[in-house]
Amino acid sequence: MRTRDKIIMTSLELFNEQGERNVTTNHIASHMGISPGNLYYHFKNKSEIIFDIYLQYEGLVDNYLRLPQGRALEINDKVNYLTAVFEGLWAFRFLHRDLQHLLQSDERLHRRYNAFFQRCLSRTQDIYFGLNQAGIIRASEDEIKALALNTWIVVTSWFSFLHTNLLVDDTRKESKELLKSGIYQIFSLERPYLTEPYQEEVARLAAQFGPPIGQIMSLGEASSPALF
Amino acid sequence: MRTRDKIIMTSLELFNEQGERNVTTNHIASHMGISPGNLYYHFKNKSEIIFDIYLQYEGLVDNYLRLPQGRALEINDKVNYLTAVFEGLWAFRFLHRDLQHLLQSDERLHRRYNAFFQRCLSRTQDIYFGLNQAGIIRASEDEIKALALNTWIVVTSWFSFLHTNLLVDDTRKESKELLKSGIYQIFSLERPYLTEPYQEEVARLAAQFGPPIGQIMSLGEASSPALF
Repeated sequence: MRTRDKIIMTSLELFNEQGERNVTTNHIASHMGISPGNLYYHFKNKSEIIFDIYLQYEGLVDNYLRLPQGRALEINDKVNYLTAVFEGLWAFRFLHRDLQHLLQSDERLHRRYNAFFQRCLSRTQDIYFGLNQAGIIRASEDEIKALALNTWIVVTSWFSFLHTNLLVDDTRKESKELLKSGIYQIFSLERPYLTEPYQEEVARLAAQFGPPIGQIMSLGEASSPALF
Repeated sequence: MRTRDKIIMTSLELFNEQGERNVTTNHIASHMGISPGNLYYHFKNKSEIIFDIYLQYEGLVDNYLRLPQGRALEINDKVNYLTAVFEGLWAFRFLHRDLQHLLQSDERLHRRYNAFFQRCLSRTQDIYFGLNQAGIIRASEDEIKALALNTWIVVTSWFSFLHTNLLVDDTRKESKELLKSGIYQIFSLERPYLTEPYQEEVARLAAQFGPPIGQIMSLGEASSPALF
């Protein structure tokens, strides 16, 4: 593996495990057993590394968020999209833990991310239009646009939702399983639009992914007394 | 007004306008024309001020997020809840711009916020159960729970959604109007569950609030070419 690729891989691993703010370029070089000078030869600073990692993430999503060619959408496509989306969130989780901070620190990244958002939103709409055309959901254009935007918000906020509201103490750690419970929430956004022949099958598929969030929340120290 | 209250009010104003990270206790004291020592007499540090402001926000929400006593819910209640929610987001917008960072910096605040989240989620569920009971929506218990959680996520992520995805350059500023377009998104979450007699009226109410987001996005420099 080329040194440049190894720097990217090591950085992603360290950022994911320790948080981007806690990892310096010196940590990365030392973890790889190379000199800081060697690292700087490839990347002038940490922002350059982050930008490169982000490009990999973007490429991954651009690759799977496509309508199938020459055939209608099927129920399983939806499961595959969601699984890929959440696998990607997990693999690049440091980006999603603290996205706003990263974007505020790098204007080039922010502009690039904005174009990515517009592209993803447009593709998500196309997927919902495709499900509509295949008779799997029935929704108007306005409904599909609002649904696509809500899907984007829930997907991209899921990580910070978990951290803000659930992972309050050290006994609860982020995990791929916890992350995937977000898939259940996305299914629930779409559920009311499902046509009758697909309701049972989709309910069965969605049930695989949740809802453990409810169980985790009820373990919380904070009580939710009946307030009314 | 007592000095303590004036510190709170001034801090909230400065945090909202300039961002919490850019405002020090010295800025606050100087803006009020008092000595830093006088400020420290009331608050030992900035975290204490933030915690106190947060308590005011929490009190505000606890106060309006209640079911009406002795009568069924009506359509207008929903509008009033949403207007109050988004007014509160706006009045305390520095909290919502960068919540994860604030919570990570103060464990006491994080635990308190977690209890608040559980309470709000439970009350949001109660409101949806109330709308169900009043015949305004028709949804199962599972659907209401997922709907309440999605509502929480979209409401609390709306500010960071705007900053991350829309307010990319200086020509676009956060505004109360932009913020309120989030109300349209919340209506869209609930829309498929509305019973027939209420669909038209709610559509008319929701239309007041949006959707300018679509218009704003289409002004973006980033093009959304047809990708398929």
